[in-house]
Amino acid sequence: MIQVSVCGPREAAPQDVANAREIGRLLGERGAAVICGGYGGVMEAAAEGASSVGGLVVGVLSGPTRGGATPYLTVAIPTGMGEARNAVIALAGDAVIVVGGSWGTLSELALARRNGTVVVQLGGWRVVDEKGRPVEGVRYADSPVEALWLTGLFG
Amino acid sequence: MIQVSVCGPREAAPQDVANAREIGRLLGERGAAVICGGYGGVMEAAAEGASSVGGLVVGVLSGPTRGGATPYLTVAIPTGMGEARNAVIALAGDAVIVVGGSWGTLSELALARRNGTVVVQLGGWRVVDEKGRPVEGVRYADSPVEALWLTGLFG
Amino acid sequence: MIQVSVCGPREAAPQDVANAREIGRLLGERGAAVICGGYGGVMEAAAEGASSVGGLVVGVLSGPTRGGATPYLTVAIPTGMGEARNAVIALAGDAVIVVGGSWGTLSELALARRNGTVVVQLGGWRVVDEKGRPVEGVRYADSPVEALWLTGLFG
Amino acid sequence: MIQVSVCGPREAAPQDVANAREIGRLLGERGAAVICGGYGGVMEAAAEGASSVGGLVVGVLSGPTRGGATPYLTVAIPTGMGEARNAVIALAGDAVIVVGGSWGTLSELALARRNGTVVVQLGGWRVVDEKGRPVEGVRYADSPVEALWLTGLFG
Repeated sequence: MIQVSVCGPREAAPQDVANAREIGRLLGERGAAVICGGYGGVMEAAAEGASSVGGLVVGVLSGPTRGGATPYLTVAIPTGMGEARNAVIALAGDAVIVVGGSWGTLSELALARRNGTVVVQLGGWRVVDEKGRPVEGVRYADSPVEALWLTGLFG
Repeated sequence: MIQVSVCGPREAAPQDVANAREIGRLLGERGAAVICGGYGGVMEAAAEGASSVGGLVVGVLSGPTRGGATPYLTVAIPTGMGEARNAVIALAGDAVIVVGGSWGTLSELALARRNGTVVVQLGGWRVVDEKGRPVEGVRYADSPVEALWLTGLFG
Repeated sequence: MIQVSVCGPREAAPQDVANAREIGRLLGERGAAVICGGYGGVMEAAAEGASSVGGLVVGVLSGPTRGGATPYLTVAIPTGMGEARNAVIALAGDAVIVVGGSWGTLSELALARRNGTVVVQLGGWRVVDEKGRPVEGVRYADSPVEALWLTGLFG
Repeated sequence: MIQVSVCGPREAAPQDVANAREIGRLLGERGAAVICGGYGGVMEAAAEGASSVGGLVVGVLSGPTRGGATPYLTVAIPTGMGEARNAVIALAGDAVIVVGGSWGTLSELALARRNGTVVVQLGGWRVVDEKGRPVEGVRYADSPVEALWLTGLFG
């Protein structure tokens, strides 16, 4: 089963929420499992979108219980490891789609690239070098459909 | 969704494998998700039993990739955290069912009890105090059906 | 530098506290670093013993800050990973000395044995198989001096 | 004891190595412990600098053993958790100093900011928003001395 991690902030802009919901829906339609952090904002929107079409969603939670998790998860994995769980989310996807920007989200993006995993980004923060030139390694999408396409997982 | 972690050795006795497969099957029939370590032996048997009746199985892997995982998982979560992932398996179940004995298995049992999670054991190692008296806190089952019943999760 | 992890309950019996303090002192005298969980009971006693002779003590904390740590640590490493940090303590020692029994302590003992690390125990819980026979793999000491000797690290 | 995490790439430019060594030395002189990832490049340079003046250095290793660690560590903590250990390094410092850029380094920077920890950066990658404006939250230094000063830990 194809697995895609969808990452983004809990405090998310409306456009990011809408994009995440659509990405979740598209992944669910294609039979891919959505992995996410399991709480609100972009995480919840991706979960809601996938579950709306019967898709499978796994929330890898930072907390030690299922408390506070979005109800749109199929399975919740409480890790009790705090933000170290971001490393698990970064590893668990065949690709990682990032929607919007926050420090937690950036850590997932960076950990995924550290692993060599494909990262596709829709909105959010960018990484540049000291001279302001883009650091290579992230694929930028302009729409949810393009984000899935850029993962290279969906023919 | 009810979630039950099933723990046991990779190098498992035939009786433990048979018990784990039956426990997986019974959990799948009751609509509970099986969480396991995702590799061979008891882990694979529980996964196989659950998937044989269409149940959902999540493997929380110690390795950083899906390599070496049993094919009977619905979703694999590679953690790259080695045996620290045992703490995740111990947290992720509403109850933990232990089948057979090994040091890794015992760590999961102990971590689950540390969290206050219900642990039911079918075969395997026992913990006694310095005077040889059983340490309280684990429920012992004589059969797969009794193991599920002793979790208290299935009316 | 030789590193020895000393594990035991936060709620510890007076004899266990005294043993842990003496083990810490002996390790400090021999120039070995003490690794422990960093909170009260056996952990604090081992730290206090080592620091009383100028020894180095590292507390690997379950919490995300240094809050609640014993003051006898040289360095505190807050992990924010809850009980998953027990796996780190189990890995960080060239040997693990266990003083007294609790579920958390047992998880450290089991994780250390899972790694193949030498475990020496002074008091506390024992592991037996289904027929009540001791499970091999732990060395039992009768005194702090013997505990150090059984690690095999001190000529 | 003040603890400062020093983060940077294993494959580091000569200027980053020189800066990290000087930062380690300055921290050691001020009696602060250096926390680092424990391998080569910036990590080793910071450890070497601190140890050259008798400072204390803790390496929080991604691997499950002390293999491959720089010899300039006082204590090595093998975590066996892969890059999830970056979250521990980000938590363990009263401040985090970043020298140079890489995906692993960026994950530590982001995790530290996610925790609210002060991050000072000397060289390396920058984070900007979609319009190219700097994302606030990181303090930029032009020299090792300024990096220490910007942590706010050294009067």
